[in-house]
Amino acid sequence: MPTLYHHPVSAASRFIRLVFREYAIEAELLEERPWEQRRDFLALNPAATLPVYVDESMHAICGAGVIAEYIDETCGALKRDRRLLGDNVLERAEERRLMDWFLLKMDNDVTRHLARERILKTIMSKEHGGGAPDSKALRMARNNIKQHLRYLDWLAGSRNWLAGDKMSYADLAAAGAVSVLDYIGEIKWDEAPQARQWYQRIKSRPSFRPLLADRIRNLPPVSHYADLDF
Amino acid sequence: MPTLYHHPVSAASRFIRLVFREYAIEAELLEERPWEQRRDFLALNPAATLPVYVDESMHAICGAGVIAEYIDETCGALKRDRRLLGDNVLERAEERRLMDWFLLKMDNDVTRHLARERILKTIMSKEHGGGAPDSKALRMARNNIKQHLRYLDWLAGSRNWLAGDKMSYADLAAAGAVSVLDYIGEIKWDEAPQARQWYQRIKSRPSFRPLLADRIRNLPPVSHYADLDF
Repeated sequence: MPTLYHHPVSAASRFIRLVFREYAIEAELLEERPWEQRRDFLALNPAATLPVYVDESMHAICGAGVIAEYIDETCGALKRDRRLLGDNVLERAEERRLMDWFLLKMDNDVTRHLARERILKTIMSKEHGGGAPDSKALRMARNNIKQHLRYLDWLAGSRNWLAGDKMSYADLAAAGAVSVLDYIGEIKWDEAPQARQWYQRIKSRPSFRPLLADRIRNLPPVSHYADLDF
Repeated sequence: MPTLYHHPVSAASRFIRLVFREYAIEAELLEERPWEQRRDFLALNPAATLPVYVDESMHAICGAGVIAEYIDETCGALKRDRRLLGDNVLERAEERRLMDWFLLKMDNDVTRHLARERILKTIMSKEHGGGAPDSKALRMARNNIKQHLRYLDWLAGSRNWLAGDKMSYADLAAAGAVSVLDYIGEIKWDEAPQARQWYQRIKSRPSFRPLLADRIRNLPPVSHYADLDF
């Protein structure tokens, strides 16, 4: 059976898990701790990033963007109305821009810092960087999140879905990042009513259920995390 | 006429300039200083990243990866043997993995730090971060470059081109990054003989000439920069 190496705290992994569920692609989920630099994992993906998809023939496809294109080419392009990339080149360009926005820019500005300081450092051993959070990194990320939440709110308010009329990779990429931040209560939903409505819609999809069941050891989510009507 | 917003010190911009030349796509080049956060540029690309391509109909396509896919869909897919993305899904996945490697991972580990500390800080005004280089950032990047050069050497030695039999986006992405670092003499070619042969081949292509003519004010390149037989 194909395998998806992922981590519940990785926004990019969550994005691909949503894509797989939307397309009903079966894959065994294996939790990987990339900071441990496991030798067999580095052999699959020398960049040591998540997620990595290993298909039936043992080909490793590395990174969320690369997996998303691979899945579109092998599966999505046949789905007609349910395809998660747009039908024309400009729609696809906008969807890809927003995938990069949420999985690269927002990750660099916000997500990976809050995930690391507030979640991963409680899991990591001392030699891998575990310990108390760095208050400077927290402050920087919490400052940056405001601009990202405003942008998300603007996108959600001015379009039906984030990249246009149809739900696309852009929504699932954004949802992957937002769900990590929402787990630890870092999203101030009161300040972004239109983003909240968008998230309620996407959170209600059956594909989202496994993400809402994710639990991190010794760190329960905020009370509204799995609540569809928060 | 279509426009490409770029900067000579941006590896991702150089990659797209190579792609345009290989496909003989005409575009006016406009040099942009993204650190100045020019309002009109932010309206094109709120992420403030380079490059940005604005087509005849004034649609802005933002970021090297997104432009590369757009150009493949509108132009490359018709080029048969000269297409810069592979013919099958696994080839394309490997090419995209290496594009990410050279434009995201190597950029984070090495390229943007050396470019910033050694080049951009000599151009930037003080308010935008100009000034003396940060020796800690230089040391970190120079330490990381060794692993990247070894990997490039290994790829160049074990395959005809970096991602396989044919020249692809992977080679042009790598060449974009390498050419920035070579301008300031940060590549120790003696330590990577196979990477050197690969770079000699790609540097000799007509598409490369405009890059070799790039000059940064008050900072001439190392003597071998434009030499095809270095």
